[in-house]
Amino acid sequence: MSFKAQVLTLYPEMFPGFLGHSMAGRALENGIWSLDKVQIRDFAADRHHSVDDTPAGGGAGMVMKPDVLAKAIDSVDNRYPRLLMSPRGCTFDQKMAHELKDGGGVTLICGRFEGVDERVIEARNLIEVSIGDYILSGGEGAALVILDSIVRLLPGVMGNSQSGEQESFETGLLEYPQYTRPQIFEGRSIPEVLTSGNHKAIENWRKTRSEEITRLKRPDLYSVYEKNNRKA
Amino acid sequence: MSFKAQVLTLYPEMFPGFLGHSMAGRALENGIWSLDKVQIRDFAADRHHSVDDTPAGGGAGMVMKPDVLAKAIDSVDNRYPRLLMSPRGCTFDQKMAHELKDGGGVTLICGRFEGVDERVIEARNLIEVSIGDYILSGGEGAALVILDSIVRLLPGVMGNSQSGEQESFETGLLEYPQYTRPQIFEGRSIPEVLTSGNHKAIENWRKTRSEEITRLKRPDLYSVYEKNNRKA
Repeated sequence: MSFKAQVLTLYPEMFPGFLGHSMAGRALENGIWSLDKVQIRDFAADRHHSVDDTPAGGGAGMVMKPDVLAKAIDSVDNRYPRLLMSPRGCTFDQKMAHELKDGGGVTLICGRFEGVDERVIEARNLIEVSIGDYILSGGEGAALVILDSIVRLLPGVMGNSQSGEQESFETGLLEYPQYTRPQIFEGRSIPEVLTSGNHKAIENWRKTRSEEITRLKRPDLYSVYEKNNRKA
Repeated sequence: MSFKAQVLTLYPEMFPGFLGHSMAGRALENGIWSLDKVQIRDFAADRHHSVDDTPAGGGAGMVMKPDVLAKAIDSVDNRYPRLLMSPRGCTFDQKMAHELKDGGGVTLICGRFEGVDERVIEARNLIEVSIGDYILSGGEGAALVILDSIVRLLPGVMGNSQSGEQESFETGLLEYPQYTRPQIFEGRSIPEVLTSGNHKAIENWRKTRSEEITRLKRPDLYSVYEKNNRKA
């Protein structure tokens, strides 16, 4: 079963963008996932193909019209979650990536301008999602990032299926430091334990370093990890 | 002064990607920002052009070699902050977007595989940055998102310079709901206050809604907002 991505946007030419190359690009060619692009402007009824209008109550910028966006949404397969890319949304994370992958498809709606009329968000049960606490020029970059995180989880996309399970956010800890050849780089050696052949010691060293790095860099993640470990 | 973006990657063909269109694309054409792409593989010395090797101590995947990446880094203009895209990094936010914009340029390093040899991170003072708590297939999507957030802040990129200041994360609150014509959409009206012409009432309504939405959806942001308001 192919994973179905449907993207609603004013800039269909931005897709598949960087997902057209490397692993995700090969997976798209091989039918592991599919990408339907819908130009929202095609659903504008007036002769100027207007998709936006001035905000009620005044203010800078333009707001996407509810009627046009509703028609665009109604034109696609509505079996999948409908995510509206929005800085007001709940924050996307690895758990959501897994859930969306398991659902078999997703509809990603890319807003522009100051935002989207609130009534279409309510009337079409759009789930507002943000990829982080920063502002983008539109939803397209966010949609591409969300698709990237989902596509790499699909069976057959990653070369080594074991990769992915030891990674940051999957274990609740950030990843331990990695080293490879050469043995000495600009006077710096690979930590001795890693070349000792002692698998138990290597595992312990890595776990300790993961915990240290997480505690230092992401106390928020570390406190969740600590709580879960106390329960276990 | 043009903003200088330097990207080190194994996939230069992924850039400028979606940033080649719309506002960011026009700004790139107009020289408001520039984009230098460096193929890391060009700095591999062996005849196979190897950029990665197996992890010291074992484990899945491959690690980017420190010597090759160091040479690639040393080949570019080193006056700008060097960010390594990494799920282990500190979390990118709007404040960093402003700081990087003010600095006039940035070097973005896109890792692949299981990671990058820790010694090159230390030896070249790379700042590890994450765009959120999810895993991508590589650093390219993260680099594009960071550039998008910076480029839209550059003078002359956004049509209306007032836009941007009322937005989520800039005020410490999420944005209030927006509405536009038609007056009635599928039986739903625009809230009366917004069409009242009473500017003071509109301002109050919007502030109250912003506070409500932030408290509900992002208690983390709301507690910071509350603390700052108590000080003021």
